[in-house]
Amino acid sequence: MARILRLAGAQMGPNQRADSRAAILGRMIALLEGAAARGAQLVVFPELAFTTFFPRWPMEQDSPELLACFETAMPNPQVQPLFDRAKALGVGFYVGYAELTPEGQRFNSAVTVGPDGSILFRYRKIHLPGSDRVKPGQRYQQLEKMYFAYGDTGFPAARGPAAWGAPVMGMLICNDRRWPEGWRVLGLQGVELVLIGYNSAAYDPNGGEGESAERRTFHSTLAVQANAYMNATWAVSVAKAGNEDGAGLIGGSCIVDPNGEVVAQAKGLGDELILAEADLDACRQGKEKMFNFAAHRRPQWYGMITERTGAVPPG
Amino acid sequence: MARILRLAGAQMGPNQRADSRAAILGRMIALLEGAAARGAQLVVFPELAFTTFFPRWPMEQDSPELLACFETAMPNPQVQPLFDRAKALGVGFYVGYAELTPEGQRFNSAVTVGPDGSILFRYRKIHLPGSDRVKPGQRYQQLEKMYFAYGDTGFPAARGPAAWGAPVMGMLICNDRRWPEGWRVLGLQGVELVLIGYNSAAYDPNGGEGESAERRTFHSTLAVQANAYMNATWAVSVAKAGNEDGAGLIGGSCIVDPNGEVVAQAKGLGDELILAEADLDACRQGKEKMFNFAAHRRPQWYGMITERTGAVPPG
Repeated sequence: MARILRLAGAQMGPNQRADSRAAILGRMIALLEGAAARGAQLVVFPELAFTTFFPRWPMEQDSPELLACFETAMPNPQVQPLFDRAKALGVGFYVGYAELTPEGQRFNSAVTVGPDGSILFRYRKIHLPGSDRVKPGQRYQQLEKMYFAYGDTGFPAARGPAAWGAPVMGMLICNDRRWPEGWRVLGLQGVELVLIGYNSAAYDPNGGEGESAERRTFHSTLAVQANAYMNATWAVSVAKAGNEDGAGLIGGSCIVDPNGEVVAQAKGLGDELILAEADLDACRQGKEKMFNFAAHRRPQWYGMITERTGAVPPG
Repeated sequence: MARILRLAGAQMGPNQRADSRAAILGRMIALLEGAAARGAQLVVFPELAFTTFFPRWPMEQDSPELLACFETAMPNPQVQPLFDRAKALGVGFYVGYAELTPEGQRFNSAVTVGPDGSILFRYRKIHLPGSDRVKPGQRYQQLEKMYFAYGDTGFPAARGPAAWGAPVMGMLICNDRRWPEGWRVLGLQGVELVLIGYNSAAYDPNGGEGESAERRTFHSTLAVQANAYMNATWAVSVAKAGNEDGAGLIGGSCIVDPNGEVVAQAKGLGDELILAEADLDACRQGKEKMFNFAAHRRPQWYGMITERTGAVPPG
């Protein structure tokens, strides 16, 4: 029996800092309903989907405005309507959010929720970009290393429900998608579907020189294509896009097959659905031949990957 | 002072099994001279450039026909004219060849030769594809695992000569380019230029179902683009192409910049030069920002990459 899973990416336009949670949640539920109406079984939302990308703003660590960006439980009353609607529709979803644990730790996290409304697995972002302190004189910051602890979950894989074809699933968040190490740890768990949410700058919001939005979108897509190919997995990579708080975010949300081919891609920078029917068994050819890890990997020569953090050029 | 290195890829059309060494060497020297005439300082030849891709043919391990495919030293009298001409022109090169050591070990190897004719460094292919035994009933084989030992050099990086801008250089061979581990070990040595030769099937020569030549070329290019981007390095990836011994090889030789953009690509399946001026300092932005490994890598979560060879899916 073919293992077909109908995937959707729910790209979101910007969440302005002044937007109410209710308004944002309403847009997410509308995207969920639209995806369900078109047959989707699993919907992928962006990183930090419930708020603006707040690491661009310097805030005091225990200020109410910062704490308001974090979820102290998942689900919680504020986001429960999304969970309820998804369960009623029998649709699962991935969503990224800022997590504040009972112990006071803060993570850039994501969960994947099954069609029955239960949380299948959790992930905390490992590759945090940005700075651990405010850069003076810059209007816009990138403070992920200040606001979040490095994820402590590793790169877990989980078996999805039988109704989805029991795929081996993994999650990444934003910058993780550019790091082949995370993909490979998922690949070594036989991953067939990788879910990713992101917020990626379209240009330097402080007006410095930098890459074009077109090039940044190319990089975002290229990394997902090649890592999906090299691990013989499907991938769904979903942006929050557009002009958010005066800073631009790329779109380019995409669904990529195990050959690294883009099978669906968002065209705009607003709320937009992309859909694809994923044949999970399309992963088999890669896993059994070209990327038969057991036959072809040579880990005795990979030691530097774990022994060294930074690059050390020869003399 | 800008660090500009003028690169050439010398894609080769097929080497038929019946072709003489002299004829093949003559084509290589013509490509070298053509590249030098257009200003190239470093020319990249394919994998197993001096012969047909002989792992497609079953031969007895100590038969004269198999031994004739191997080089017992590099250089040696048969290939000396290429070394002599390159030295006279002041052009360096990468070339792949079958190596038979004094101890009787056989490797799929490559060397990079400096503008003064000396060998800068050596590499022995680690990711051998194919089978370690003849598959009965198949006209065409892929016997790399039978004819060659796995490379024992690791993934060495070397500093190129001052006349080239002293780039940190690495080598890969063919199938290695699809394995992010090899690229990352080079990246962790600060590599600015990766040289690659390949022979990749354009279709199943035994007439089975398989991917199109177009898709295989896409995969070949995609892997180089993304791994160049993720390691912020230039890359030159060069095919032996066309109908060789009745089996098709893809072309698609390319030069890729540290953004993962293809800056030159071969159009045909014959002897063909591609050229690019590589600004080595274009690697700096990636190495200092997005792919600042010291700032952003988290090796404590990469352990599975060295601890596990094959994939182990969750229960």
